[in-house]
Amino acid sequence: MIDIKDRVCEAVAGKIMSAEAAAEFVKDGDNVGTSGFTPSGYPKAVPLALAEKGKKTPFQINVWTGASVGPEMDTAMTQAGIVARRMPYQTNNDLRKAINNGSVKYTDLHLSHVAQMTRYGFMENRRCVDVAIVEACKIIDLGNGQVGLIPTTSMGNSSSYVQCAEKVIVEVNTSQPVELEGMHDSYVPLDPPNRKAIPVEKPEDVIGTPYIPCDLDRLVAVVPCDITDKVRPLGEIDEDAQKMGKNLVEFFKSEVAAGRLPANLLPLQSGVGSVANAVINGLVNSDFEDLTVYTEVIQDGMFDLIDAGKLRVCSGTALSPSPDCLKKFYDNVEKYKKYIILRPQEVANSPEVARRIGVIAMNTAIEVDIYGNVNSTHICGTKIMNGIGGSGDYARNGYLTVFFTTSLAKGGAISSVVPFCSHVDHTEHDVDVIVSERGVADLRGLSPKERALVIIDKVANPKYQPLLLDYFKRACEACGNSQTPHIMDEAFSFHDRFVKTGTMEK
Amino acid sequence: MIDIKDRVCEAVAGKIMSAEAAAEFVKDGDNVGTSGFTPSGYPKAVPLALAEKGKKTPFQINVWTGASVGPEMDTAMTQAGIVARRMPYQTNNDLRKAINNGSVKYTDLHLSHVAQMTRYGFMENRRCVDVAIVEACKIIDLGNGQVGLIPTTSMGNSSSYVQCAEKVIVEVNTSQPVELEGMHDSYVPLDPPNRKAIPVEKPEDVIGTPYIPCDLDRLVAVVPCDITDKVRPLGEIDEDAQKMGKNLVEFFKSEVAAGRLPANLLPLQSGVGSVANAVINGLVNSDFEDLTVYTEVIQDGMFDLIDAGKLRVCSGTALSPSPDCLKKFYDNVEKYKKYIILRPQEVANSPEVARRIGVIAMNTAIEVDIYGNVNSTHICGTKIMNGIGGSGDYARNGYLTVFFTTSLAKGGAISSVVPFCSHVDHTEHDVDVIVSERGVADLRGLSPKERALVIIDKVANPKYQPLLLDYFKRACEACGNSQTPHIMDEAFSFHDRFVKTGTMEK
Repeated sequence: MIDIKDRVCEAVAGKIMSAEAAAEFVKDGDNVGTSGFTPSGYPKAVPLALAEKGKKTPFQINVWTGASVGPEMDTAMTQAGIVARRMPYQTNNDLRKAINNGSVKYTDLHLSHVAQMTRYGFMENRRCVDVAIVEACKIIDLGNGQVGLIPTTSMGNSSSYVQCAEKVIVEVNTSQPVELEGMHDSYVPLDPPNRKAIPVEKPEDVIGTPYIPCDLDRLVAVVPCDITDKVRPLGEIDEDAQKMGKNLVEFFKSEVAAGRLPANLLPLQSGVGSVANAVINGLVNSDFEDLTVYTEVIQDGMFDLIDAGKLRVCSGTALSPSPDCLKKFYDNVEKYKKYIILRPQEVANSPEVARRIGVIAMNTAIEVDIYGNVNSTHICGTKIMNGIGGSGDYARNGYLTVFFTTSLAKGGAISSVVPFCSHVDHTEHDVDVIVSERGVADLRGLSPKERALVIIDKVANPKYQPLLLDYFKRACEACGNSQTPHIMDEAFSFHDRFVKTGTMEK
Repeated sequence: MIDIKDRVCEAVAGKIMSAEAAAEFVKDGDNVGTSGFTPSGYPKAVPLALAEKGKKTPFQINVWTGASVGPEMDTAMTQAGIVARRMPYQTNNDLRKAINNGSVKYTDLHLSHVAQMTRYGFMENRRCVDVAIVEACKIIDLGNGQVGLIPTTSMGNSSSYVQCAEKVIVEVNTSQPVELEGMHDSYVPLDPPNRKAIPVEKPEDVIGTPYIPCDLDRLVAVVPCDITDKVRPLGEIDEDAQKMGKNLVEFFKSEVAAGRLPANLLPLQSGVGSVANAVINGLVNSDFEDLTVYTEVIQDGMFDLIDAGKLRVCSGTALSPSPDCLKKFYDNVEKYKKYIILRPQEVANSPEVARRIGVIAMNTAIEVDIYGNVNSTHICGTKIMNGIGGSGDYARNGYLTVFFTTSLAKGGAISSVVPFCSHVDHTEHDVDVIVSERGVADLRGLSPKERALVIIDKVANPKYQPLLLDYFKRACEACGNSQTPHIMDEAFSFHDRFVKTGTMEK
């Protein structure tokens, strides 16, 4: 067994056991709350053991995480058939298939809502967490029958799951450096009617403890593990992504010039993935300085901003760089740690904080409609891709809310601008700006009919502009220029055409 | 001219003038920000004078209010053709017609967003307020070149409009008792990056001043007025509304019994209108005590709760009782004032505060779909009814989010439960509970397909249940049980049938 003696305090030494032994604490029907947000900081050994156990003796559990996690959870446990319900977010191929064929129930939530809904007892069977399984790099003694868990590369919902759980299993992962200690800020608000203001007033404010407190008598197992985070390489920054990044930087410059943004902008929130990374990359190559980040996921671009001396502070709930960048971080933890704060997603995604500090919310859309509604979750209205994640937490509350989309998808068979979003995750009331490789649609203050003309002009692809304009004009006539013109039996004609012919083209 | 000498301080005595004279300060193309929220506390004399002026010399202005206002604004100014753009909410027949035929541009916003978007310079022509026109019951001298405006029956966006405006016109309304002084709590947060926490931690917390401060040199006119608020009688509480109120009270009782709500519940937010009033009425006749209200609009039901000794505090942004109840209030201002706080809508509707204190958000839907999305604004997807108002501010952030709808509308020709909402204002991620006269659909923690069965069973009318179930089952088959089954070219078939045949029935 991997030696973790120098990473755990004496008080828990007697609880060290194998993953298989720890897995026995998990019962059929349990609500299992785990650490992990993106493929970072999630438990690995116990989920693999649970999957193995499930292959022998069928059982099912409800799996609650921070957000997406790695294959040791979502692939292994889905393939073993032990996941009854999964919440609140995922990005895994096997799990996505199981959700979209009805074999796993999936509850897609705003990521800031999860911890409090759990504490309120609003979830499965109106019970809270039965077993929490969290990854730590170290366990310290706090005295008075408590220990402190030092988290690893994410915070997610760990603080609340540990606080609520009847039983807590901790994986102490030796692939995670002990130098991570000091990078986390664990904080669990009281619940109404006793809650106070979350005291973050600047992205750099630290409000909690560097460890997650845990009662010794609820900590039932400490499991050694050395399996690494399965972070993924980022896609190449293609021409479209580069153009979107450039469009955004130009827009920021004009807002600064007009006095509507400070010279160092406002705290940046940026979604996950290649486009988001390209956008941050656009800032690395800009003249902006003294930037701040208040986001969910810290990716390569943020490290580049730190390296370029352009970032004052980087607050998130997960560190999810590419494998190369993760190595750079591990090799220089002490350097990067000065800039990085990992918070519970309830704080990182807090509407209260996002609105107070005035984040610039930047997220990616699957499709947008001509009136500015955004679909972030479903393909052609029916199959879920990932989930809404934290986009709603930030988009509703940002100082400025930006969505990105390329004008085309599937080699041109799909127009990202459609008459009516096939699933609405962000409404017309929540979207300020839409950026595509073609331009910037600034929707602030506009009525729906004005928005339609700007979106078709600046965001849509010339290939689909005539079709969209034709729909809009006929809808205006059919409705007598009402507030939001539509021809209801044609509203989904683009999607219907795609499903039937393989392209939205006519 | 009406004598207002005993209501205004010496410093502004020289600025008293007629409405016609004051109207000359408003120029073609101006952004005009007014007081008013519901037909309460809005300016009357100057808008009527502007309408008259417009009939002689055509000009147009952009009219920004708190929310809906009275006919002296929306009827008179719309009929005179002087409104270019209106935001952020309305309930007026003439204006609605003008919006839905394209002659007035309408920007429908979350009510908590309006003041800050105005201050940020995000609105019309990226200019802030050119002229603010606000109603006051009194003007007091603050010294140092400042006066204090004592608002009347609403706060709305007055504090921010007055703070931003180049010119301020005050209507001193003698129909509003001076005893209103002391009921208001004016507060304007700083803007990012300097904003601090809004320090409301209990519904009764007072955080600002009882007056709106205004620089003397920007105050250009003081106009005497004695036109009364045009509050409206409430509809009778019909059988359906009574049943919805009863269903809600039973649900609350079971939540209290299960320990998920305190015995005195949590601060209640309730939308406007007869259904909302019936729901509050249900509480008047219940055993609940020591209740609190943190809402937008204070209506008759809240006064009944005060009279019944069941309400500790009632915080809102507007007082909008029926004519009878308004008389009762005017006759007993000192009594009711002890219970009532009127705040700027930026605070009354603050997501930060709503989530912290844990409001129970109760709003009315136009229609809901089988997956729990809610349409609050549009009839058959195209014609706007009123607007989203504050429902999104509360629904997204409430401890518990409830939407009400009767199962049928238009005498049964419309099913309030449809396959796909013809306009989405609140997404599946934002809705906990839907109540109709038939029952309570508790959606917390459920996946979309589970929600569909509960909504069809508990909310929909038996007349439409077979059609809805048939759609759902065929959609599940067509999509292979995907996350959110739909048949896209049938998703709006209910609406299409209604438009073509006058009923959603088959």
